[in-house]
Amino acid sequence: MSKVLTAVIPLPHAPVELRELPEPELEQNSALFDVTLSEVCGTDVHLQAGRLAGVPYPLIPGHVSVGHLSKIRGEMRDIDGHAFKEGDAVTFLDVHATCHACWHCLVAKSSTRCPARKVYGITYGMSDGLCGGWAQKMYLKPGTRCIRLTDDSFQRFMAGGCALPTALHAVERAGIRLGDTVLVLGGGPVGLSCVILALMRGALRVLCVGAPENRLSAARAAGAAATLNIETHDDNARLQWVLDQTNKRGADVTIEATGAPAAVVQAMRFTRDAGGVLIVGQYTDHGDVGFNPHLDLNRKHLDVRGCWGSDFSHFYRGAQIMLNPARSDAWSQLKLERYGLAQANEALAAVASGRAIKALIDPHA
Amino acid sequence: MSKVLTAVIPLPHAPVELRELPEPELEQNSALFDVTLSEVCGTDVHLQAGRLAGVPYPLIPGHVSVGHLSKIRGEMRDIDGHAFKEGDAVTFLDVHATCHACWHCLVAKSSTRCPARKVYGITYGMSDGLCGGWAQKMYLKPGTRCIRLTDDSFQRFMAGGCALPTALHAVERAGIRLGDTVLVLGGGPVGLSCVILALMRGALRVLCVGAPENRLSAARAAGAAATLNIETHDDNARLQWVLDQTNKRGADVTIEATGAPAAVVQAMRFTRDAGGVLIVGQYTDHGDVGFNPHLDLNRKHLDVRGCWGSDFSHFYRGAQIMLNPARSDAWSQLKLERYGLAQANEALAAVASGRAIKALIDPHA
Amino acid sequence: MSKVLTAVIPLPHAPVELRELPEPELEQNSALFDVTLSEVCGTDVHLQAGRLAGVPYPLIPGHVSVGHLSKIRGEMRDIDGHAFKEGDAVTFLDVHATCHACWHCLVAKSSTRCPARKVYGITYGMSDGLCGGWAQKMYLKPGTRCIRLTDDSFQRFMAGGCALPTALHAVERAGIRLGDTVLVLGGGPVGLSCVILALMRGALRVLCVGAPENRLSAARAAGAAATLNIETHDDNARLQWVLDQTNKRGADVTIEATGAPAAVVQAMRFTRDAGGVLIVGQYTDHGDVGFNPHLDLNRKHLDVRGCWGSDFSHFYRGAQIMLNPARSDAWSQLKLERYGLAQANEALAAVASGRAIKALIDPHA
Amino acid sequence: MSKVLTAVIPLPHAPVELRELPEPELEQNSALFDVTLSEVCGTDVHLQAGRLAGVPYPLIPGHVSVGHLSKIRGEMRDIDGHAFKEGDAVTFLDVHATCHACWHCLVAKSSTRCPARKVYGITYGMSDGLCGGWAQKMYLKPGTRCIRLTDDSFQRFMAGGCALPTALHAVERAGIRLGDTVLVLGGGPVGLSCVILALMRGALRVLCVGAPENRLSAARAAGAAATLNIETHDDNARLQWVLDQTNKRGADVTIEATGAPAAVVQAMRFTRDAGGVLIVGQYTDHGDVGFNPHLDLNRKHLDVRGCWGSDFSHFYRGAQIMLNPARSDAWSQLKLERYGLAQANEALAAVASGRAIKALIDPHA
Repeated sequence: MSKVLTAVIPLPHAPVELRELPEPELEQNSALFDVTLSEVCGTDVHLQAGRLAGVPYPLIPGHVSVGHLSKIRGEMRDIDGHAFKEGDAVTFLDVHATCHACWHCLVAKSSTRCPARKVYGITYGMSDGLCGGWAQKMYLKPGTRCIRLTDDSFQRFMAGGCALPTALHAVERAGIRLGDTVLVLGGGPVGLSCVILALMRGALRVLCVGAPENRLSAARAAGAAATLNIETHDDNARLQWVLDQTNKRGADVTIEATGAPAAVVQAMRFTRDAGGVLIVGQYTDHGDVGFNPHLDLNRKHLDVRGCWGSDFSHFYRGAQIMLNPARSDAWSQLKLERYGLAQANEALAAVASGRAIKALIDPHA
Repeated sequence: MSKVLTAVIPLPHAPVELRELPEPELEQNSALFDVTLSEVCGTDVHLQAGRLAGVPYPLIPGHVSVGHLSKIRGEMRDIDGHAFKEGDAVTFLDVHATCHACWHCLVAKSSTRCPARKVYGITYGMSDGLCGGWAQKMYLKPGTRCIRLTDDSFQRFMAGGCALPTALHAVERAGIRLGDTVLVLGGGPVGLSCVILALMRGALRVLCVGAPENRLSAARAAGAAATLNIETHDDNARLQWVLDQTNKRGADVTIEATGAPAAVVQAMRFTRDAGGVLIVGQYTDHGDVGFNPHLDLNRKHLDVRGCWGSDFSHFYRGAQIMLNPARSDAWSQLKLERYGLAQANEALAAVASGRAIKALIDPHA
Repeated sequence: MSKVLTAVIPLPHAPVELRELPEPELEQNSALFDVTLSEVCGTDVHLQAGRLAGVPYPLIPGHVSVGHLSKIRGEMRDIDGHAFKEGDAVTFLDVHATCHACWHCLVAKSSTRCPARKVYGITYGMSDGLCGGWAQKMYLKPGTRCIRLTDDSFQRFMAGGCALPTALHAVERAGIRLGDTVLVLGGGPVGLSCVILALMRGALRVLCVGAPENRLSAARAAGAAATLNIETHDDNARLQWVLDQTNKRGADVTIEATGAPAAVVQAMRFTRDAGGVLIVGQYTDHGDVGFNPHLDLNRKHLDVRGCWGSDFSHFYRGAQIMLNPARSDAWSQLKLERYGLAQANEALAAVASGRAIKALIDPHA
Repeated sequence: MSKVLTAVIPLPHAPVELRELPEPELEQNSALFDVTLSEVCGTDVHLQAGRLAGVPYPLIPGHVSVGHLSKIRGEMRDIDGHAFKEGDAVTFLDVHATCHACWHCLVAKSSTRCPARKVYGITYGMSDGLCGGWAQKMYLKPGTRCIRLTDDSFQRFMAGGCALPTALHAVERAGIRLGDTVLVLGGGPVGLSCVILALMRGALRVLCVGAPENRLSAARAAGAAATLNIETHDDNARLQWVLDQTNKRGADVTIEATGAPAAVVQAMRFTRDAGGVLIVGQYTDHGDVGFNPHLDLNRKHLDVRGCWGSDFSHFYRGAQIMLNPARSDAWSQLKLERYGLAQANEALAAVASGRAIKALIDPHA
């Protein structure tokens, strides 16, 4: 039986290690997936730092990936009912096993809160099989939802990566209207995709506040009308800048994509009365923050929405956008850094520091 | 010229005083309004305590009132275009002078944040004329929007009082669905109207958490399925009780109507994942409160909405409900305490302590 | 092996016949369901008249039913994850086999248009097994979604019957606001549940236009403020009556639940400018109707929504309402007619004529 | 007193005539507006053909115009509260005198159905003064809402013209989601602005069905992914083409902007199940059309919305888009035809035939 090279986080805080694992036997209606590119994102940094609950170490990271179905046992179909065949270029929804049988799935219709939900590369560990994308091959369990791509869309799709469905969900839920001024806090992958998608959603102007400078420069290249560096501007200076950019009213809609608790309160303060705030960056617990419910929320008549995860619809629509070169051109401008499996620790460091706009693992490099 | 007896807050912290004022000359298209009943609400307690900004003391409190148009100069019409005549039984929208010409009125369509907005009994002071309901007569300026009532609906309408449009706005904005479990925090007038209106909006069960016991008993009489007294249950006990009442999930929708900053965070914690939180009780600044943006907001995928004030539509629809005895029966059950103008300080004390469910001024008592 | 008595529609236009069928072997995770009551609704009349496409005759009608799980093989769980046990009182979602894998289920999130969708008693025929409720027992296939009831809620639940989730879906989708005047066209089971649910949703007044008189009288008993008999009032008289009831403006929201194409156009004409129209009664093809797109739709700035079927959330929330005696009292007032299996043809005739408000099959009578 | 040259429709069906009128005295808080460009749109063709009710002939057409405030008496302010001064470059909302005091304005919040509403160039006739844009100067009555432009934005703004706020209202109300396929029926000015705005709103692909070919070619230049000429394709061929373009499902959202009643029914048929249809082209009465409520509406679970007129918010946001050269580039590509006042009849003929994409009156030519 052939061997598969993988990169593994053995324990919280331990460096990534290379390991060779046997190629699995396929269950009925499952597939082997030959990884072309997999992502290194902020979640992977959190995983190595042990900041996420419920992670079954050791695990192979890499939740969003592109590649080819190299072996199919039984049948796998796309959402139009057409069977996949070996060799097809695909990505797949990293979220697996939402049950479609529980109260969250059926009554609340909020499958991102389904208790049965599992995520490749995050809550599926090595004991579940080849379930992460930092590997030459992955095992796609029965029920995994694949989406057709084309080889020439791979790089564009991965420039969005897992940030794309997250940002698409956030932007859709943010309630942007035609002609709005949208403020994005954070210039990481989610923030950058929010900049692009907010413009695609009809914002007239998108502002971006973040750091470091290379991210802000990417935000401007992606269409942001103006950016502000938080390293050189304190809270008051930021508020003043936002007011100056918005006719003294604040942004119509602010999207927080930073991870810093203080940014949630700033998002409320930087938004106009009766505007909208969307919180998508608080993916891990960084502690408490204080705010004033009268001044920051009630009197402002704000609409503040948390946004957790994404479902198939966000992933699918993101993929359709990326299959269209004209509509996804802004992502093509983002600078990608490629790393081999043996360079996974460097990739994590580059992402943690914000040096890399977007880092990818090429397991065949 | 005849004299009008009024009750006046001369300065923050000073007791209410009786004063006689001259009956005004009427401008074209204005009216004199003979007050039958006016309200004593939490806002009036705040006014005496100097907790609201922009109040032009001395002022005559009393923003929501019922009575009769005793004199009309020129013409005043209802929203169907029919002219009012002297003797008509009416109430009027306490909010006056939203400009319908500014960005907030015309583009954001959030007139409750219009900078020109003035409120009878709150931001119109004595220098603006007979502009509060704690008086035998009021002066209704041109452009004041009157709504027809009937004499027999006066008491029911005032049982809702200013809490009615506030609660109606809150309940409409809260996103309740048929069959939901709704949790109301606070058992004051706004909380009680929220209990009634949440049931009217389709909630299957409404829970109420508050104090003192007389308010909770009023909540149960108004339809609450279960209540909890905060005087005898700490935060953890409250959370546990809510989970026990909601199949361990939390309420589908929570409406905060308390005034206490800590209740805003509790509202988030007492609500199920992907549920809704409506904040309507933070009418004045009681300082900061800490919360955890990851655990309390983002991961829960919550929708948290501030709700400020109300506009004519809320006031009008509230009045139509009160004109219908069958649909407004729950308000008829609320206990009303009547006070003469000379007893205004007692009325304020009864409201401040929560002893009175609803206190009214009868200026002719 | 024991025998099960059933009532069968052998072919379109043929009378219902009694047939004895063998009790089935149970697959893993399926159950045998002992029918206490099953419904006779307009759909069953359509089935016998051959007016629905895709029906695999012969079939056992009866899509919504209540009873007890008499035998379980393997495991069946409720949406809270608790296993059902033999003897439990339940109903079940008549819609089965929506795939949760196709474009309609996953991207459009409109599972009522899923091509794989099957309905007990309608698109499952006799060749699929004991799949209709006009039988002493039914076979619940793996994946059937059961909902816990109590024996004392059976009759109330069946007073709503299949009309309940349909009407709940319609009323939720209709966009009713607190204080609205809602007009319901049609006084059959769906119309009556719409009357009740529109009031529960916050309508101030509900009007009902239909026939015959016993239905209108049921509508008034259920809370309708006023009703009009179409047998004695033509189109113009109806329009005039609606205008008279609505301050000359038309209803805020009109719900069509009649089956007659002309009622769709009347619904538009009876609704106020910028109001809402919900079409839920056009379950079968009764041909074309003419309307004026300028006068009836565009200039009126109407919102006209078709509403097809219902999903688990509607069924579940309907059941929760019926488990609450206070909230479901209005349905308790509806008159039920019970028929044995041998009287199924009489039951169909009573429903077709509108004589019966609600007819039920009691297979053990 | 100086004279103002105007173009006047004296009576239905009569050709436009030149007339000289005296320059008016200005009321307090009104202005004289020096017209740079005014529009010739489909409404003007209807006006000459006598197809609109309530038009007080003779009238000066031209409802959307750009130019300069040449004289101000008293004060006119923008929505930020800043006073206009003579010489300012502006446009103004053609809708005047919505009352903000009636049921439609205050309760339904649908000011486009306010009975007091007047429109410059349509329902203000010559007897109301210089109230149309086909004139060297216009009289802006008190309460007219002006919006600041810049001279260099004039041409771009007029390329949108009155179609811009109409289309913006339609696209906003149409419920487009990120990644949707949107079908626009009609390639006139409203259709073309809908093509552009649907893309700006997040549609992935926009299809356009219309005629003649020059309009379709403009639609493609504006971003339409594919177009179909109705002159060479009958109903069936159009349906087949739409299905071929949409994976056999139909468009997610269809916007009708044609004026032909049959297009309303086609819009329903060309849209996928559970999709949205927006009707904005039925501005005048062209008679009835037949449809099948079961097949075309109810079973499809469609959402069909009429969209009438526009309010200040649509106009304002449209102007902000046009002030931004990058965001409004697509309109810059549209071919404009300029006519002097003496050529107004030629302009009308060019618009009526569809020969001109967009015709403008330059009253100083």
